[in-house]
Amino acid sequence: MRIIGIDPGFERVGIAVSEKEKGKDTLLYSSCFKTSASLSFNKRLALIGEEIKRVIRKYDPEVLAIETLLFNNNQKTAMSVAEARGVMIYEGALKNLDLCEYTPLQIKIAVTGYGRADKNQVNVMVRQLVNIEKEVKYDDEMDAIAICLTCSASHNGLK
Amino acid sequence: MRIIGIDPGFERVGIAVSEKEKGKDTLLYSSCFKTSASLSFNKRLALIGEEIKRVIRKYDPEVLAIETLLFNNNQKTAMSVAEARGVMIYEGALKNLDLCEYTPLQIKIAVTGYGRADKNQVNVMVRQLVNIEKEVKYDDEMDAIAICLTCSASHNGLK
Repeated sequence: MRIIGIDPGFERVGIAVSEKEKGKDTLLYSSCFKTSASLSFNKRLALIGEEIKRVIRKYDPEVLAIETLLFNNNQKTAMSVAEARGVMIYEGALKNLDLCEYTPLQIKIAVTGYGRADKNQVNVMVRQLVNIEKEVKYDDEMDAIAICLTCSASHNGLK
Repeated sequence: MRIIGIDPGFERVGIAVSEKEKGKDTLLYSSCFKTSASLSFNKRLALIGEEIKRVIRKYDPEVLAIETLLFNNNQKTAMSVAEARGVMIYEGALKNLDLCEYTPLQIKIAVTGYGRADKNQVNVMVRQLVNIEKEVKYDDEMDAIAICLTCSASHNGLK
């Protein structure tokens, strides 16, 4: 099973692609895609959507796994992230990818077995679960890998 | 100046296209596009985006005008509408349309001159401002026409 995992945002978007074969996860791709704050919001949406489309076209995943949005105090930011998230889900839907959504809590539990794990604990466990050959500079990229692993674990026994 | 006006939603989307020539607005198209609640959310997003793409391709507008979202008590619905709204803005951005956003208050004032106008007053004034030859069954469609007129009025003197 091949999965594109996305940590949604409009300033930074974590994107990862993993493949599970015989119960083992392999990381095929990961990045943190950034858009400049100097661009208009609609231009940033266009760049984000086109990047998701590019990765889907290149890696041909079957599932798009994405983090659900938590409501926070900054509703303006939450709305903008929701708009970007809509574009990501849309690009997956146009390619008939299945959609899986996970809360931050589900991701922490899937990766560390512990719902109150901090960023560092998540990072350590992700690196134990999958071989990451590159330097991962942004949490968004690591979170996208964690979302792939969460989706993979929730489909155990399927493929 | 040719405008696509959108009243965003994911259950019902109001879509209208107007053209201003020599200071006079003409309505070229209006509809209320509906998606079935029996479909998955990502499928509904795909249908909505493809419909916006179809209307843009057919009428080739220069500007996409869309209502801003008001925050309400139902955050789940607000997030879903924001996701759909992101898809609409994205389709406009891919075609390099300018983006204009208006609050419900701005739309009421532009159309009726009165910020506390009710639905019925808006509908009456819209029909005085532009010739509508078809029956308009849904408020969403009428709101999309009002958004076109608001955008047109805010660009007075341009074209």
